[in-house]
Amino acid sequence: MTESPLPDTASEQILDQVLGLELLEWDDERARGRFDVENRVRQPFGIVHGGAYAALAESLVSVATHTAVMSEGMLAMGQANSTSFLRPVSSGTITADARRRHRGRTTWVWDVDFRDDQDRLCAVTRVTMAVRPAPPTEAP
Amino acid sequence: MTESPLPDTASEQILDQVLGLELLEWDDERARGRFDVENRVRQPFGIVHGGAYAALAESLVSVATHTAVMSEGMLAMGQANSTSFLRPVSSGTITADARRRHRGRTTWVWDVDFRDDQDRLCAVTRVTMAVRPAPPTEAP
Amino acid sequence: MTESPLPDTASEQILDQVLGLELLEWDDERARGRFDVENRVRQPFGIVHGGAYAALAESLVSVATHTAVMSEGMLAMGQANSTSFLRPVSSGTITADARRRHRGRTTWVWDVDFRDDQDRLCAVTRVTMAVRPAPPTEAP
Amino acid sequence: MTESPLPDTASEQILDQVLGLELLEWDDERARGRFDVENRVRQPFGIVHGGAYAALAESLVSVATHTAVMSEGMLAMGQANSTSFLRPVSSGTITADARRRHRGRTTWVWDVDFRDDQDRLCAVTRVTMAVRPAPPTEAP
Repeated sequence: MTESPLPDTASEQILDQVLGLELLEWDDERARGRFDVENRVRQPFGIVHGGAYAALAESLVSVATHTAVMSEGMLAMGQANSTSFLRPVSSGTITADARRRHRGRTTWVWDVDFRDDQDRLCAVTRVTMAVRPAPPTEAP
Repeated sequence: MTESPLPDTASEQILDQVLGLELLEWDDERARGRFDVENRVRQPFGIVHGGAYAALAESLVSVATHTAVMSEGMLAMGQANSTSFLRPVSSGTITADARRRHRGRTTWVWDVDFRDDQDRLCAVTRVTMAVRPAPPTEAP
Repeated sequence: MTESPLPDTASEQILDQVLGLELLEWDDERARGRFDVENRVRQPFGIVHGGAYAALAESLVSVATHTAVMSEGMLAMGQANSTSFLRPVSSGTITADARRRHRGRTTWVWDVDFRDDQDRLCAVTRVTMAVRPAPPTEAP
Repeated sequence: MTESPLPDTASEQILDQVLGLELLEWDDERARGRFDVENRVRQPFGIVHGGAYAALAESLVSVATHTAVMSEGMLAMGQANSTSFLRPVSSGTITADARRRHRGRTTWVWDVDFRDDQDRLCAVTRVTMAVRPAPPTEAP
């Protein structure tokens, strides 16, 4: 078997898929996503694992920034992800709303708010994305 | 099917299990863990998803702090998780080394370093845990 | 001379005063402040020192939280201050607008936005305050 | 009076000077500094203002990074400063020890530990510096 960083079968899902993270819509200023509170996003005591919030924030902001800059020959990579956990959630659906705060030449900064089914704020994440020139692609 | 926040079958794995996060050892000052770089911890471009680092840091520090304080009638909950991504990794194993920096009455602070197979630092996380009195358990 | 942590003459100003930080108004949900861009808030290259933003955020959020909780016999102390610098500023006035994002029993979280004279966002700070019971005061 | 971002008299001190922040030594991997706990670094209750820690961390890491990269035609600017406050200090001297954790082409990351006279950890700061090409200087 040859070494490849990419999946060779449909059964090998990436992180967003195994955690059930859904990216609903995004542009260069806003992005929205969500996940259902099932065991795959829980920690051992039955509440949402902090990593699930951080992961959805990272996915949302990455795809939104990357989509915006790739037409200019740039790529976007996560540089920092800082999450504060405000309220434990054990069931329902978590909704994420990302808002871009800064669009610089080399850095974008986004704030992501997470709310539960009663619209209560349960976590907030600040994500910094690095924007860099994409490496040239080889001619075939 | 009845609603339950907890798994009713062994097949419903929690986050650590679906991502393959391994907690190797821990006490009240250090903790070590790891994960293999498989698709389940990757983002769409084939590198490790930022949420995987944040999740392992959160799991390691939570179990280490909780184990230390529960004999005193306390519980530990994640309060903040701040990760900086330093180097993209697309294969191999990621090893996490957590070191406690502060043990207060109400707050513990830990630093977690992530290294790849060549011992290069690829991410760092600072985790703040809140330590609070555990709610009394009901008599049967 | 007796040891005292507090000033014994009016000429010994505290940090807010020596940096010229002004707290304009505050309640338990919002706070506003500002400083003029003079040398005392600059770094060697003539732009606003990152510590000046962090300091004003800390002062604003501390006084707003403390004012809100002290009538309940509690006190508020800064626990974490995380600032992202978005745009260098070399003159004019910096205005800070703080918005409370979370009011928990033991933790409050605030976001502070800093803008220059052209209303451009130049820095953002997230501040976490710990709220704890105040120590009993001694009877005379 | 002409507008100038720079001081026109020696009496107009910059932030490091008005707060008494001392940069003791630095190279591209470590840096050390300190400040005395006088009123100019205190908040109203007599303890060290959180902004003083953030400011010294920012100064130390900025000068260390900038000194290292300027010979390569680059300059360094603070991008993020995240401080956790662990122990209130009301007198003595605060010593800062900065350690570089990452040296990338566009980003450096440093950790700064602050200790009091009894060598107790009182605050920790993580600083991210952006490294960018310096603008060309004009010929005379």
